[in-house]
Amino acid sequence: MNQLLNNIRIVLVGTLYSGNVGSVCRAMANMGISDLVLAAPRICDNWEEAARLAVHADAILANHRRVDTLAEAIADCSWAVGTTARGGLYRQHVKTPREVAPELLKLAAQGRVALVFGREDKGLTNEEIGICTHLIRIPVHPDYASLNLSQAVLLCCYELYSALGTYEPPVEKSSPATAAQKGKLLEKWREMLLTIGFMKEDKSDHMMQGVQRIFSRGTFSEDDVAIMMGVARQADWASKHGNEER
Amino acid sequence: MNQLLNNIRIVLVGTLYSGNVGSVCRAMANMGISDLVLAAPRICDNWEEAARLAVHADAILANHRRVDTLAEAIADCSWAVGTTARGGLYRQHVKTPREVAPELLKLAAQGRVALVFGREDKGLTNEEIGICTHLIRIPVHPDYASLNLSQAVLLCCYELYSALGTYEPPVEKSSPATAAQKGKLLEKWREMLLTIGFMKEDKSDHMMQGVQRIFSRGTFSEDDVAIMMGVARQADWASKHGNEER
Repeated sequence: MNQLLNNIRIVLVGTLYSGNVGSVCRAMANMGISDLVLAAPRICDNWEEAARLAVHADAILANHRRVDTLAEAIADCSWAVGTTARGGLYRQHVKTPREVAPELLKLAAQGRVALVFGREDKGLTNEEIGICTHLIRIPVHPDYASLNLSQAVLLCCYELYSALGTYEPPVEKSSPATAAQKGKLLEKWREMLLTIGFMKEDKSDHMMQGVQRIFSRGTFSEDDVAIMMGVARQADWASKHGNEER
Repeated sequence: MNQLLNNIRIVLVGTLYSGNVGSVCRAMANMGISDLVLAAPRICDNWEEAARLAVHADAILANHRRVDTLAEAIADCSWAVGTTARGGLYRQHVKTPREVAPELLKLAAQGRVALVFGREDKGLTNEEIGICTHLIRIPVHPDYASLNLSQAVLLCCYELYSALGTYEPPVEKSSPATAAQKGKLLEKWREMLLTIGFMKEDKSDHMMQGVQRIFSRGTFSEDDVAIMMGVARQADWASKHGNEER
């Protein structure tokens, strides 16, 4: 049980208030989760607030890591679960934490899962959402849909902790692909799609979000990455050399 | 729906920190609950912290009432649900918030229900527990079982709000692809992968199983099919005509 929770990482992107970091630590400890990474924090107040609100979760606070980007924060994770309060394009396949919690525990048996929380003032960017494999929205009352950051973290961790009770271990032969492996795949696909003339440079960001979404649905194994990488290389090659010449 | 939530009252007993009161207001607003009563508050800090943390839930903060005892706070309620982090005598009939939420909503259709939260430092007394009709304990990790007050309120309100069942998850605009659409997509991909020389005819069944598996993970929408169909057509075309000529 703890082994699964050990494979859950909380990533806070661009956090402004140290008090929220402290409260997040406490909420994590309450639910048995301890791996905290801050991506490009923008802490604008007195850091001491963090320790005051972490209370007995001071070990989590002391052991947190800082990196410059979300991509770095999730590089060794096979899944990244973005949280959003908004709908809109590319945010339509959202689920509730309760719906995905059992699946996330199964995934955590195979690799690391990051839960990603955006800025207090403006959440996650579309680009950041794009590199997430799952997207969740916490059910809240429409009159006031903005949760405090640590409250959002608590609810997600609570759903994971609660779902442990129903957990059944899964099996898949090929390891799940990591974010870094999928990042390389997407780079190669962008190059190929430009080469074969499937898209123009100026529309490519938009189109790649669609492709990224496709590759993020469900589990994507290392074998899957190898296949799709091969497809891209070959299409690239064939469009340059013609398919007869080989 | 709001009618039920209007019959839910949050009662904080002997609260010490005004920031917790503010955070409680915000959490209540997030879950559509607005009736707050402080019983014998012991606020020991600067009250301004409450407004800062309530953010847009300032109306709840402004409208809260204060009374001298828990008995007064729940006088007009038909049910009072005490919260406890401890077990022990008189605390053995505890349930989880998730277990009792549907029942509490049914009760709220008939009368007022109070959720009662104790002091930050020592919870509710046995006497206070005694006048509650229900008792709940939030599932937390045994290593750190003490939740922040506003986090505890949030989880209970969240379970009530979730139990309403009226929350409808957003729908994806593009319909899920049918088996027939995915079948056509796979045919086109087979053709393309042969054309670009990614696979030989005699290995193609095996390889197509891998591709099929990728396209079968999670929901695959009609838009997704359109994108992947376009990719295959274009790779096909480019490998026959070269990518420069278009």
